[in-house]
Amino acid sequence: MIDEQILSVLRTSADYYVSGEELCKLSDISRAAIWKHIENLRAEGYEIEASPHLGYRLIAVPDSLIPAEIKWNIKTKVLGKEVISFKKVDSTNAVAYGLAEKGVKEGAVVLAEEQAKGKGRHGRRWISPSKGGIYMSCVLRPEIAPGEIAKITLAAAVAVAKAIRLSSGLSAMIKWPNDILVNNRKVCGILTEMKAEQDSVDFIILGIGVNVNTQSRYLPKGASSLREEMRRMGWDEALSRIEISRKILEKLEEYYFLLKKDGFKPIIEEWKAFSAMLGSRVRIMLPGRSFEGHAHDVDSDGSLLVRRDEGIIEKVSSGDVVVVR
Amino acid sequence: MIDEQILSVLRTSADYYVSGEELCKLSDISRAAIWKHIENLRAEGYEIEASPHLGYRLIAVPDSLIPAEIKWNIKTKVLGKEVISFKKVDSTNAVAYGLAEKGVKEGAVVLAEEQAKGKGRHGRRWISPSKGGIYMSCVLRPEIAPGEIAKITLAAAVAVAKAIRLSSGLSAMIKWPNDILVNNRKVCGILTEMKAEQDSVDFIILGIGVNVNTQSRYLPKGASSLREEMRRMGWDEALSRIEISRKILEKLEEYYFLLKKDGFKPIIEEWKAFSAMLGSRVRIMLPGRSFEGHAHDVDSDGSLLVRRDEGIIEKVSSGDVVVVR
Repeated sequence: MIDEQILSVLRTSADYYVSGEELCKLSDISRAAIWKHIENLRAEGYEIEASPHLGYRLIAVPDSLIPAEIKWNIKTKVLGKEVISFKKVDSTNAVAYGLAEKGVKEGAVVLAEEQAKGKGRHGRRWISPSKGGIYMSCVLRPEIAPGEIAKITLAAAVAVAKAIRLSSGLSAMIKWPNDILVNNRKVCGILTEMKAEQDSVDFIILGIGVNVNTQSRYLPKGASSLREEMRRMGWDEALSRIEISRKILEKLEEYYFLLKKDGFKPIIEEWKAFSAMLGSRVRIMLPGRSFEGHAHDVDSDGSLLVRRDEGIIEKVSSGDVVVVR
Repeated sequence: MIDEQILSVLRTSADYYVSGEELCKLSDISRAAIWKHIENLRAEGYEIEASPHLGYRLIAVPDSLIPAEIKWNIKTKVLGKEVISFKKVDSTNAVAYGLAEKGVKEGAVVLAEEQAKGKGRHGRRWISPSKGGIYMSCVLRPEIAPGEIAKITLAAAVAVAKAIRLSSGLSAMIKWPNDILVNNRKVCGILTEMKAEQDSVDFIILGIGVNVNTQSRYLPKGASSLREEMRRMGWDEALSRIEISRKILEKLEEYYFLLKKDGFKPIIEEWKAFSAMLGSRVRIMLPGRSFEGHAHDVDSDGSLLVRRDEGIIEKVSSGDVVVVR
């Protein structure tokens, strides 16, 4: 709490020195105590200059996924108002799921620098090295039926694709239902899990993994990171994981609210504009069978509509898709 | 294990005495050890006669929801092959949910004589006194999409209604979606909970609470028990909770397999035949609004179709229904 107060003052006076005396007034503590808090902040990665006569000055903030940074100046009403960060967890989705079961409010966000057992769809792994990724899980409590969960996943895919575009300038595309591709390489995955009764969702955990600065050698085949794709484009800007996380949360909230207010239609239109496969020949892999066809459209409930060679339109609400070349 | 072996021998020789010597051969243990196991069984409620010269004879089995009794001679392949029983738990659904998260197999069943926090729909309570109820939760792992969960609930309602009819002779009816009524009083409730990803169910917990021998004074208003309803009919047979539990598990499995094999259509036909409200005037209560109409039919996905006075058919997939008289 005092750390955050000190940080806030230093931030708003980034061009000046703030005297130890001034900081003491903040919360009525001694100069020795202030010094201790400054040391705490430095340990977290904040670069703070200390001049015996002038006082303290904030030089740089760390690009760590710590609550104070994520929450600072975030333009959301609900998402990210509560943030819990870890250096390493088994799975941010599992932690968020546990918190949601204990009643944590909608909008709580769990972040980690590294996941030991990052979850992908259908029990698969999401490789989550501590090499510059964002591993984030959000608790949502929408008043929807379990069958409508695809709408949330697709709205999230649009939100994250847009956040990546705005943060990096890369042409992020969506691969149905929940992958984000750049130059046809997977840079982000979304895993939606829920607890529900027959007719109502209790909560949804929206898990988002983004490879931001991660180098290819730490990633599985077919995967890439924003950094690697920018390099490929010859771009050299630095990427701030903090800013990307904040942008993702802002866009998620924007589309989540839009879904509540105007329904799924405007979202599906944006989804189609980002789609990496509509119009392509695809192979659909379901448990026990697979077939090829033409990815024709997305249905009003978020299912993929595939026109088979015999002319039949098949509605696909689960399974994996690959584009056939 | 040895308890169950001894019990099995005593059961098959219920009209005879089995000598201690014979029992010793079963598992190569001493007569003193046999005596100890007999004492265990007596503590569980088994009445076992011991004659110094003749041996042991099974007089009566307890009507407790203990695994050995539930599993004995049960005609199922999956459901109830693993049974875990409690004198008292907070909620059998919560226990089963926890086991399912840890990977327990499909078909595991959790039973309790009493629930401190029995769950009803939408965070309500299911009053669960230790006065002759069955509180049961089954773990299912169907390969379905989350939107199809209503099919499981409705199949379960048909199965349980049938099991109650076969066990008691009472005309059990179904109130959409998940209550079982006898003479318009609620004798049983079904609560389906699940953990799922966007396109696939991880597991379903099917919670079933049946008031079997429970007296009215222990039950909330509008509720009754099989025993009370039989009394009302002037019937005097005893009801065995063990036999009813077994019958419920057998019928659940039968309809669950039927759903897998032949789909929802044959089940929905049986559901309609048991329906306590199709054809009646009903009031539908949804969060924030309610309306009246004519309960017209059930849709292919398990939703209730209500014809409003203006002639519009409204599809109801959640909420509460009361019959308007």
